[in-house]
Amino acid sequence: MKIAALSSATGVSVATLKFYLREGLLPAGESTAVNQADYGEAHVRRVRLVRALIDLGHLSLADVSRVLAAVDNDDMSLHDAFGVAQDAMVPQRLREGDDYVLMLDEVTKFVERHRLDVRPEAEVRKLLADALLVLRDFGWVGRDGRVDSGLLDWLAEPIIDNAIEEMSTVPEPADRAVQVEFSVVGTVAFEVAAAAIRRLALEHASYQRFARPGKR
Amino acid sequence: MKIAALSSATGVSVATLKFYLREGLLPAGESTAVNQADYGEAHVRRVRLVRALIDLGHLSLADVSRVLAAVDNDDMSLHDAFGVAQDAMVPQRLREGDDYVLMLDEVTKFVERHRLDVRPEAEVRKLLADALLVLRDFGWVGRDGRVDSGLLDWLAEPIIDNAIEEMSTVPEPADRAVQVEFSVVGTVAFEVAAAAIRRLALEHASYQRFARPGKR
Repeated sequence: MKIAALSSATGVSVATLKFYLREGLLPAGESTAVNQADYGEAHVRRVRLVRALIDLGHLSLADVSRVLAAVDNDDMSLHDAFGVAQDAMVPQRLREGDDYVLMLDEVTKFVERHRLDVRPEAEVRKLLADALLVLRDFGWVGRDGRVDSGLLDWLAEPIIDNAIEEMSTVPEPADRAVQVEFSVVGTVAFEVAAAAIRRLALEHASYQRFARPGKR
Repeated sequence: MKIAALSSATGVSVATLKFYLREGLLPAGESTAVNQADYGEAHVRRVRLVRALIDLGHLSLADVSRVLAAVDNDDMSLHDAFGVAQDAMVPQRLREGDDYVLMLDEVTKFVERHRLDVRPEAEVRKLLADALLVLRDFGWVGRDGRVDSGLLDWLAEPIIDNAIEEMSTVPEPADRAVQVEFSVVGTVAFEVAAAAIRRLALEHASYQRFARPGKR
């Protein structure tokens, strides 16, 4: 297909597609004439992957490039590529202070308590520490400056079960790149779906508790 | 406390605090002398709320202002203020096309199926439609261009139960502003915690399935 058709297929403007081509986020099409190139299904998938990472994952272009490099590196195992993608999906920010170190320590205990095989250097540990710090500051999970593990574990159990089941839906080794794509897209898309469902349910719960006519 | 102490208490630099004061994200302290002001616990909470919305919720400064206006408007009910905050937390982006309309329709069916009391105009519906579009494009929940409700409902059930339980942890009507704050901070902080836990579990599941020595 020509670039106009790729644009129609993906809902991404030709100008943006050309930008992706220049930035190396999208491989060149097959040249068919001067200034004409042919694009295939792999390009459609790649554009969708890039959009999912940017729109749903809030990734910067630099982080999208890191993820794509891992997806495309055939020498990298599926699991290692998934780890690179996971790390790129954690926002970089200044994290310091005793409280932050304390929360990272709580994350370590959490990972050990649930016997999760997670790299010690996995960036996502920082993301959980960020959230715990806020929850503790507002009095949710804190007790004597530590985290009350009961609430955290109650929150975690169905999530862990769901995630393991979700990973089992990644197709069997056929095309490694497709598999990595699946893991990465699944991470962001199921996460946003879960967050949106959670917010729908919270609005419902707020209505039921605070606004329903005749309540109390 | 002076502004330097507010900075220590919150981990936010004095320069950033002054920026928040200029932008109206933080109310002025009580003047004690020329160029000196006194800040209290309410300021500490407000700074933490602003940081949570920016860092964990990815909100723009304009959206943070909208949320704070709702928190501070005593004439607005808790539930309505929560709705404003919820809407501000959904990223604005161009959403159009037949596929998107189809996915919004799937969201409507989802909300009805689970009997959720959610405003028809709630922005978060768009966020779920975004995620469903990606999941469908990559072949997860799609079937004949529609969404397979089985996977979605399986994902949703524990999340809905958790969210309703979570809303019940918002304290009883004592101070309306504190209650709104709780709902808003809870939305972003539990969401990031849940996302981080999910990613930890996915890394674990990827290791178990694809990298564990001796597997298969």
